[in-house]
Formats: sequence, structure tokens, C-alpha cells
Amino acid sequence: MMKVWNFLFLVTFIISAVYCGYVYETKTFTTLLDHFNFVDDRTFSFRYLVNNASVSNDKSPILFYAGNEGDIELFAENTGFIWKIAPKLGALIVFAEHRYYGKSLPFGNESYKDPQHLGYLTSEQALADYADLLKFLNPEEERPVIAFGGSYGGMLAAWFRMKYPHLVTGALASSAPVLQFPGVVPCDIFNRILTSVFKVALDRNPDGTPQSICIDNIKKSWTVLQNYSSNDEGRKFLNQKFKFCTAMNKTEDWNTFYDYLQDVLGNLAMANYPYPANFLADLPAYPVREFCGQLNKEFPKNEELINAFNEALQIYTNYTQKLTCLDISSAYASNLGSKGWDFQACTEMVMPTCANGTTDMFIPKKWDFKEYSDNCMKKFKVIPREMAAMTQYGGKRMDTASNIIFSNGLLDPWSGGGVLRSFNEKVDVIIIPEGAHHIDLRADNKLDPASVKESRKFYLEKFKTWINEFQTKM
Amino acid sequence: MMKVWNFLFLVTFIISAVYCGYVYETKTFTTLLDHFNFVDDRTFSFRYLVNNASVSNDKSPILFYAGNEGDIELFAENTGFIWKIAPKLGALIVFAEHRYYGKSLPFGNESYKDPQHLGYLTSEQALADYADLLKFLNPEEERPVIAFGGSYGGMLAAWFRMKYPHLVTGALASSAPVLQFPGVVPCDIFNRILTSVFKVALDRNPDGTPQSICIDNIKKSWTVLQNYSSNDEGRKFLNQKFKFCTAMNKTEDWNTFYDYLQDVLGNLAMANYPYPANFLADLPAYPVREFCGQLNKEFPKNEELINAFNEALQIYTNYTQKLTCLDISSAYASNLGSKGWDFQACTEMVMPTCANGTTDMFIPKKWDFKEYSDNCMKKFKVIPREMAAMTQYGGKRMDTASNIIFSNGLLDPWSGGGVLRSFNEKVDVIIIPEGAHHIDLRADNKLDPASVKESRKFYLEKFKTWINEFQTKM
Repeated sequence: MMKVWNFLFLVTFIISAVYCGYVYETKTFTTLLDHFNFVDDRTFSFRYLVNNASVSNDKSPILFYAGNEGDIELFAENTGFIWKIAPKLGALIVFAEHRYYGKSLPFGNESYKDPQHLGYLTSEQALADYADLLKFLNPEEERPVIAFGGSYGGMLAAWFRMKYPHLVTGALASSAPVLQFPGVVPCDIFNRILTSVFKVALDRNPDGTPQSICIDNIKKSWTVLQNYSSNDEGRKFLNQKFKFCTAMNKTEDWNTFYDYLQDVLGNLAMANYPYPANFLADLPAYPVREFCGQLNKEFPKNEELINAFNEALQIYTNYTQKLTCLDISSAYASNLGSKGWDFQACTEMVMPTCANGTTDMFIPKKWDFKEYSDNCMKKFKVIPREMAAMTQYGGKRMDTASNIIFSNGLLDPWSGGGVLRSFNEKVDVIIIPEGAHHIDLRADNKLDPASVKESRKFYLEKFKTWINEFQTKM
Repeated sequence: MMKVWNFLFLVTFIISAVYCGYVYETKTFTTLLDHFNFVDDRTFSFRYLVNNASVSNDKSPILFYAGNEGDIELFAENTGFIWKIAPKLGALIVFAEHRYYGKSLPFGNESYKDPQHLGYLTSEQALADYADLLKFLNPEEERPVIAFGGSYGGMLAAWFRMKYPHLVTGALASSAPVLQFPGVVPCDIFNRILTSVFKVALDRNPDGTPQSICIDNIKKSWTVLQNYSSNDEGRKFLNQKFKFCTAMNKTEDWNTFYDYLQDVLGNLAMANYPYPANFLADLPAYPVREFCGQLNKEFPKNEELINAFNEALQIYTNYTQKLTCLDISSAYASNLGSKGWDFQACTEMVMPTCANGTTDMFIPKKWDFKEYSDNCMKKFKVIPREMAAMTQYGGKRMDTASNIIFSNGLLDPWSGGGVLRSFNEKVDVIIIPEGAHHIDLRADNKLDPASVKESRKFYLEKFKTWINEFQTKM
């Protein structure tokens, strides 16, 4: 009887693990809650996924995903490139989950209870977690380690190499906005690139309409939607039309809706892949084109514009036709830890954004640190440390970095805060003109643009070079 | 009246500041108590000394002393090299005091009260203090910064460059045992070098005595002193002879005395300069030679040996003839923070030592981490983190480091844990055969050996190169 249970357990395990075709063991690693205080001995456990199918000996390379703000399984499923190359490198695959995300909650359900519990959610602590895990997996430092990640995970991968070069041989930082910090890049860069993606989304517009028709309609929508939000009758119309889970009932609800819509537009651009994907949401191929396809002509009447905008929005919210009501409290799927990221943005990851309504399609809004800070105080009782990340990791001067590939897709609004120019011959910059947010880390797809295919070839060769150099030095 | 007070204050200030001939302003900088927890907003102030006499413009270089375990004025007074070269570089001089030492006590008199108050005493926090101070002094990062330091201060200078290369252009790490950690160098290396320094201390011995007479006598003293310590009569003799401030009254007191004597021998070697100095104590020129001069023959009777040993010891303890009683609780001057360092050694700075009695002159003793750890638990209620420093900073692999000079005097027992071989062309290793502990940082002296003079010339040229490279990249 016992054996049957074991067998059933094993089957269940295998079924759950091969979801999406990737097989991994789920393990946990126990480390210090606070790596920077030597009298605090509290520990916690974080999750990591391992696949050693390609490992031939105890000096095999390690491909190490520096987990970012979400459930690590989500990232494992969306990082097909690594699964593909591991056999070619004979490498161990490790996906480490970032503390406070997924199932790696230091205080369980109380992790997000108050600022005191949240205080250990920092990038420095996360990197120290990863360093500890690597020392455990590679105690003699005999195995070359390649860190990689996308977005904030890419930032972590690059910083991991920069701060712990003795543990990390090289890093692939995909779509990593390591420069999106105060005083380094202009605050409107994100919205400017985002707008340009929507501007060129339609291959061709119906006769007579300007190419800017989509962003013109989006711009016009702000005025119209805000007007409708400002009175009972208008809100009644919007509630019926958009089917909000929580009905709008006061003028200020517009702010929530607008914040949500900005996030949706950003996410559409980030996930603007040439094939259907379910990264930030279930989306069709080229979702920005699909979105703009609903807004490709002039709408003489405001209600027509709202109708069309609602149709467009459903590309993001309801592509799978399962929507029962529209939850505008967050534009992110539940397996992305948006609350944790909000906290990080309110402490260390201060990334200024602004809009001017001219070179971008948004309502003009200056970057106002005071307002931002007040908001953080209200939300988390913390004051953001505007300069913390740049003091810790450096922005303007990164010329000592080595063995890092920074890759950016130009369709990705985050590319504005990415490294687009190399500062020495040991740092490679890869530009993917047709690429959205870390498309290069994804699995091969027959619709991949040539630049993505080329970049993946380059990465593999570069990884081999780093591994060779490491082994030569042993 | 007010003016008179101001004037008197100013005079007092100048008098105190020009002590030893170096003029500086004493300032304080307020920063975070915990740089790695973003919900803890507590701050504290640390001291730093500044001299801007050579500064010509707001892009002048900064010479930054990464303060170590002691009163920063002590280090300022013993780092004459920097005072000499600042005018040649047109540089600002900054000596930053390490948290928990000197007057930079985060919790005032309560800083050492218990482990909770001591928890913020770590090298990572100290480096983050220095990073914050540099961001304040050099907000636009337009000024090249050269960090320097000796001993633990040298370790901090090297690590500062390695961890914050965007803020630190280059580093001079003098006598910095960055490799004196578990699993990197053998635990007996310190005592082996120390013994060899005593072995060759005497230019020539009286006819017929072997060159090893000094260390033979030291070795024999352990047996004799331990025997005397083990009974009332013997202890009475020792108490009369050594004039302990707290009389020995039980067999175990030998352990305290032996620990003290080991420290004294180590300090004699570290401060074995060719001229009188008052770094670790008021000492004559070549104090090891002086010490051994008292032990340069055979002593048939034990009491004669003890007499001679006492005479020898007074080279360290009573060179200024002011000793009223011998305090064996610490071999360090009160302006060196030995308690703080004890705590650091019990947390992060685990530097194994051992003796075998054969290749060294000490009582054989294995490195026993368990015993070491138990001792730390007793003293500070902490468990040492054996691997912390090497995980954080790296030991075996430092090949990505650049713009660092590691210098070591071969008369310095700490040189065994220093970097004695360069790992790339951007790291320079300077060996000073006749040098003791960071002699190269001291002021010029006509008795300086040629190797010290040469090394100082090399440093200045290298600093100029780094500064030029920095300015070229601007």
C-alpha cells in the first residue's frame, strides 16, 4: 500500500514538474535573514529549481537564474533559452527564487504585514542569498557560473557579477534597466519609447489616416475617460462598459483607472512578442498591433471611442475570453509580486518616470520626488532612498565591469534605462531592433526575428569563451 | 568677551590639530546606522579628518583613508606618506573613522553594551559609510579617489575598490591580510613568519651561541613561566618580578599571561621599524633586536631566564620608563579598539592561527574552530561566521580586481595572509624585504631602507597614472 502512495506521489511530482516541458526538482535553501548583521541569527528558506540532466562531472558549469519579482516557476517557464543551451554546455540549471516572492516568504503569511517584516526585502540581501547558495553548490569555486536574468532579474545578474566576481564568471543581463535611476537617464525615456512602439505598431493604416492615429486616439481617450469619470452619469456608462469588479463611484477613481491603463500599455509593449505568449498576461502575437488595430480610425463620437478603447483593452485583459469583471487594482498577474516590487520601488529601486504629452502619449506629469516619497510613506511608512541603488551599484561609471552581456530590445520601453553602449571590450552590448522585453531569454520560436536568433548564438559562444577562460585559469 | 572665547577656542583647536605636525579639520558625517535595511531610518555620526590645503579646484583628487580599528587620529599621525604626497597631487586628504572606534560610537557609551548594540559593527556597513561620505564629498563623481589604508584599513581599501569601483579609482592596500581566512592560507603562517623575524633579529650572537638563541630562550620561557604559574611560590615570584596590575593567583592565570605575551611578540614584529616609533606602543628602533638582545645567551638558571625575559618585555611595556604596573589584559594601546576588533574577529574576521612548536616558537596548538566559536559565544553571545568574509569579498579568486597595490613587508607576520603574487597586470604587488607592518605608509625617515623609499616613489607614480586615466575617461 505504501508503495502505491509513493508511486502516486512520484507521478504527481513529475506531472507538475514537466508543466511547460521543463523538468526540475524543487529544493529549498536555508540562509540568513539578515546577511549584514552578525548578531542576528534568524534564518529563512528560499526556493530554487534544479535540473542536473546535462551534468557530467563536479566541475560542470552552473547556469544560475537570479530570480526577480515573482514566482520562480513563472521565470523558469519563460526562459527557454537556458533550457536549450544547458545540454550544449553540460551545465547544471538553477533558478533561484528572490526572497519575499513566490513561496520564498521569510515570515510566511506575515511577510508583508508591516515595514518591520518587509525590511529584509532588498537587492543586497537577495544577492547575498544567491552568493550563499552558490557557495553551497560550488564550495571549491571550481565550477564556472553564468548568472542570467531578465528585467530586474537582469539587473541582479549584472550586479551579481559586479559585486561577487569571485563567485560569478559572467552574466547575461537581458532588458536590465540598470541606468533607470535619478540623474542617469531622463525621466521621460520610458514613456517616449513606449509611445514610439504604439506609433509604429500598425503596418499600414486605412487610407487617409495618419500613422499616429493609434496614439492620437489613446491621447484623446484620456480626456474623454477622465470627463466621464467626473460625473455620475459618465461613471455609470464606464461601469457598464468596462465591467469593473469594483464600480467607480467618485471622481478620484479615475486616478486608479489611469494608473492601471498606463501599466497595461507598458505591459503590452514589454510583451510585444511576434507570437502568442502568457508572460505578463495571456496575449496574442504582436499585442500592441492588435491593440492599435482597434484604434486605427477616427471616432467622431466619444462613446464610439470608449467602445473601441474597451475592445482594445480586452486584448490585454480578456484574450482568453474568461473575464468576468475588470480588476483595475493591478495590471499584473498574481504570480508576479507587484506588492513586493512596489515596496522595493519605494525604498531602493527609485526609477523616475515622467510624461510631457508631446513626445509621449500620456497626460503631462513631472517627476516629483516629494509626491512619490509621500505616497511611499502612506503605503509602506518608508521614505525612498533616492540615491541608494546608484551609490551601491554605480550608474555613470561602470567601466570596471567585465564578462557581462547587456541585451536590449528596442521595442522595449525599459531599453531607455538599459546599457546601450559598451564601456570596455569585456562588456558586450546586444541591441535587438525588433525585440520586446527580454525576448532573447525565451524559447526558440519559428516567428523569432533574425536578430533574436543571432543574439542567442552570440550568447552561447560567449558563454563558452567565459567557461574556457575560467577553466584555463584553474 | 565672546570674541575672546572664540579666539581661545580657535587656538586650542589649532594646537590640538597640529599635534604631530599634521593639520586637519575634524568633521562629522551623519549616515544610516543600517545601510541594508530600508525601513530602519536610524542614523549616527562618524568622524572624519580633512585637509584641503592642496586643493586647487573642485575636481581635485581625493586621498581617502579607510579607517580601521582605532582612533582615526592615531592613523592620521602614523600615515605621513599621504601628508607628503597630497601637495604633489593637489589632493584633498580625508581620514574617515571606522564606526564603533575612536569617537564614532553609534550608541555613545552604550555601543559595546550588548550584542544587539554591536550588531552594526561590520566591514560591509563601514564600507557603505565610506561610500556615502564619498558621494557627499564627490557627488558628481568628477574627482578621482584613491583609497588607502594599512592592516585591516588596507583590507578595507582593497575591498572598497573591489566593491565600489564607481566611487574608488584605485587603492593602496598596505600590509592587508585579505587572504588570512579559513581555507586560503595555512593557519600557522603568521607564527612561522613571526618566529623567523625573531630568529634573524640579532646581527650576530656572542661567540658560540647559535643564531636561534633568542627563540630558543623564548620557547624555554613558556615552560618555565608556565611552571612558575602553577604554584603559589612560583606565582609570588612572578608577581614580584613582572609587577602585574592584577596579581596572578591561580594556575589558569597563565593563559591570560601567555595570550598577552603572544600579542606582544606579534606587535614587536609588526612595529619592528628601523627608528623609534609610537604606533602600537612607545618603542625603540628595531624593537625585536632590542628584545632579543636581552635573550642572546644561555641562562643556566630559570630565575635568570625570567629576569632576562622581564628585561626583554620591558622593551615593549616600559620603553618610556613610566610603567607602574603591568596590565596583561590587553597588549594594545587604549586608542586601538581591541574590544571592537575582538568582536569583529568573533563574527566576520575569522583568521585562523595555530602553532606547532617546531617551525614556530610557540606552544603547539591546533586551530580549533569549535573552541574559537565557544569562546566567542562566551564573550559576545555570537557564533562566528567562518566563511562570511570570503563569500563576501572573495579570496582564492580575485582576478577581476584592478587598480590596487598590495604591499607587504616581509618582516611583518601578517604578510603571510597578504597578496604576494599579482593576478593580473592591473594589480601591483610590492614586496618590502626589510619592512614591518605598513612601514611604507609612514612618514619619510632617514633610516628607511631603500625598498621603502622605492615603494613610495612607485605609489606616487601609480597614483598619477590612475588619476590621469580617470581624467581621460571623464
